[in-house]
Amino acid sequence: MTDEINSLTELIREFAEKRDWGKFHIPKNLAMAVAGEAGEPVAEFQWLTPEESSKESPSDEMAHAIAMEIADVQIYLLRLADVLGVDISKVVRDKIDYNETRY
Amino acid sequence: MTDEINSLTELIREFAEKRDWGKFHIPKNLAMAVAGEAGEPVAEFQWLTPEESSKESPSDEMAHAIAMEIADVQIYLLRLADVLGVDISKVVRDKIDYNETRY
Amino acid sequence: MTDEINSLTELIREFAEKRDWGKFHIPKNLAMAVAGEAGEPVAEFQWLTPEESSKESPSDEMAHAIAMEIADVQIYLLRLADVLGVDISKVVRDKIDYNETRY
Amino acid sequence: MTDEINSLTELIREFAEKRDWGKFHIPKNLAMAVAGEAGEPVAEFQWLTPEESSKESPSDEMAHAIAMEIADVQIYLLRLADVLGVDISKVVRDKIDYNETRY
Repeated sequence: MTDEINSLTELIREFAEKRDWGKFHIPKNLAMAVAGEAGEPVAEFQWLTPEESSKESPSDEMAHAIAMEIADVQIYLLRLADVLGVDISKVVRDKIDYNETRY
Repeated sequence: MTDEINSLTELIREFAEKRDWGKFHIPKNLAMAVAGEAGEPVAEFQWLTPEESSKESPSDEMAHAIAMEIADVQIYLLRLADVLGVDISKVVRDKIDYNETRY
Repeated sequence: MTDEINSLTELIREFAEKRDWGKFHIPKNLAMAVAGEAGEPVAEFQWLTPEESSKESPSDEMAHAIAMEIADVQIYLLRLADVLGVDISKVVRDKIDYNETRY
Repeated sequence: MTDEINSLTELIREFAEKRDWGKFHIPKNLAMAVAGEAGEPVAEFQWLTPEESSKESPSDEMAHAIAMEIADVQIYLLRLADVLGVDISKVVRDKIDYNETRY
């Protein structure tokens, strides 16, 4: 329980519980929130060439915006996993193992 | 570096490097991969009522499918953060702190 | 009412009504369906270079798949506009006019 | 060519050509634009109950925002179809015919 994934999950859960957001944080809504947030980095990168999208190129302002958008996707993804009772670390490892057999 | 987020990030990086996928794993493409995968749980939940989308309701088969889709979003999100040099744990904590001031 | 947008909208409405899908076709769910379908062409193109994604390059099979995915997005988008009482032709023209003032 | 879908497609094409946006409007980028815009109505509806998302409920301001977001998805979808040489009216009718055999 000292693991960082668990710590972040608990932080996010407490944040939601303090605000009584349980009624909003149902799987359907959280899946929407993950997808809505995931659309934002796509919009940032849509007109850039592959080269322009690379690490060195974006302005500091854009790099900060993208970092915050990644955080938003991560927050809702951890919350979705928490609400569904999914151990995200375990399923990531399972999926990597499965991918090892495919590629 | 023994933290689970770092361990998963390294696992995913090694997986990609072994297959020489560096040329595909640029920020623009990875943002697309995150969004493409994030569309899948949305599609799973789209016709369900909020109640039906809750933890107890889905069939085992659907629960497994959703867990794997969450894993796919997480894998590409960790890879995107890694390629951009974003410390995902730090930005999540920063974003939660920021949200504390807003809500 | 002989306009093609209206004809398609009516076809889609009849299709849904015949199957008694009104209870599923609420704005929240249809917005999810649009986004879920919109994730599919993104997944098709995610590892392609800009050049590879251009008209001449995809295989016939991929071109057909993408055409069907575009159709799916269009079907749900027309249905969403219909259910919300949005005149899609009018709002597109309004948005283009607005964009003319911006760019 | 007097059909509204063709008229809108031509308007959008002229808008892009006047601004010399051909180099940005490649299939990969336009698929991203469709998905990025499709994430916006999802974000509007994510915390609403199905009932709240229905036609009568949103405020005028929200209804206007959603209408403009629908327009944005439609504009990029027509542009994507145009660039790929996809006859969107034909593929929608084909897809509806196909769906008739499935449901």
